[in-house]
Amino acid sequence: MESIEVTTKSRTEAVDITEEVQAAVSRSQVSQGIVLVSSLHTTAGMTVNEHADPDVMDDLMGALDRLAPRRGSYAHSEGNSDAHIKATLVGLSVSLPVESGRASLGTWQGIFFCEFDGPRRRRVLVQVVPAGS
Amino acid sequence: MESIEVTTKSRTEAVDITEEVQAAVSRSQVSQGIVLVSSLHTTAGMTVNEHADPDVMDDLMGALDRLAPRRGSYAHSEGNSDAHIKATLVGLSVSLPVESGRASLGTWQGIFFCEFDGPRRRRVLVQVVPAGS
Amino acid sequence: MESIEVTTKSRTEAVDITEEVQAAVSRSQVSQGIVLVSSLHTTAGMTVNEHADPDVMDDLMGALDRLAPRRGSYAHSEGNSDAHIKATLVGLSVSLPVESGRASLGTWQGIFFCEFDGPRRRRVLVQVVPAGS
Repeated sequence: MESIEVTTKSRTEAVDITEEVQAAVSRSQVSQGIVLVSSLHTTAGMTVNEHADPDVMDDLMGALDRLAPRRGSYAHSEGNSDAHIKATLVGLSVSLPVESGRASLGTWQGIFFCEFDGPRRRRVLVQVVPAGS
Repeated sequence: MESIEVTTKSRTEAVDITEEVQAAVSRSQVSQGIVLVSSLHTTAGMTVNEHADPDVMDDLMGALDRLAPRRGSYAHSEGNSDAHIKATLVGLSVSLPVESGRASLGTWQGIFFCEFDGPRRRRVLVQVVPAGS
Repeated sequence: MESIEVTTKSRTEAVDITEEVQAAVSRSQVSQGIVLVSSLHTTAGMTVNEHADPDVMDDLMGALDRLAPRRGSYAHSEGNSDAHIKATLVGLSVSLPVESGRASLGTWQGIFFCEFDGPRRRRVLVQVVPAGS
């Protein structure tokens, strides 16, 4: 298993980690299987979405701000309940098929680490399992 | 690995692909393991929900329309930011346990491809990995 | 494959099943791989979020109540459309990397079964696949 470090620079931010994940899949030497990319945090998420036009992820992060507003009547005292809510709405991990030693992505798909309570240093695990003979 | 083609007929639509997934799991000859069903698109999603009463998926698609309205102050110029947002809220894939050569589903569970920017011809990958001896 | 029974006591409730999942991973004797924890239901979800302060899950369940209100103009006649919508927003399963025979979780992460239409007796499957040699 490998791990990827992500250093975020603002409170909310989508970081494209597609290249880092593909490199880890390649090093695993698994040709056919599944790769799991999993965040170790409770105020961040992982998703796959368009990586051609950065406006798409900006629109997504803006929509999440409206669905889970930062200011609200929350019980948790740390002031980051919105980030915890977004983490569950987005999900903490993505799984992708592996074929010919590469994570299978569509033309427009990229893998994003979604920071919801930065800036912070974050860690994501990459695990690859084989499909068998 | 197999792929399933889904041809959607309207802008938003939930398509039950449970049978196609079960057939692919059966052909994989994996008895115990995990099956991953993954969309190759950024304006569609995959989910598991009730397939007995179609009203359930209609209510879900309607709720997503309210959470990510088609018209809004979005930056992305293609007019389908709502579809990208729904794709991440729903998720691009589902993973299910495989037992006795079948994806394990509860009585009411079906596997749905969720179109958010159709009509289009779409493709979904089905990868099965074994649990070992 | 193992299964975990969860008995919920109210209509909506987050139940920490981290210990049960770790015990099942340990019994699988898989040292390196992926564990899938999957609900067999269409009105419940699975997520990973903070398990130190219970206020976090309370805030999350409250936010879901606002995103999918119980009363609304739903077509489904059973009065639990909100629970089906929440099930898809949260997702029916979580996947985690397995290392040294344990599901890899960050310091603050716990695994939660999310009841949205209880009280009920529920069942969750735990499947572990190995990463190979």
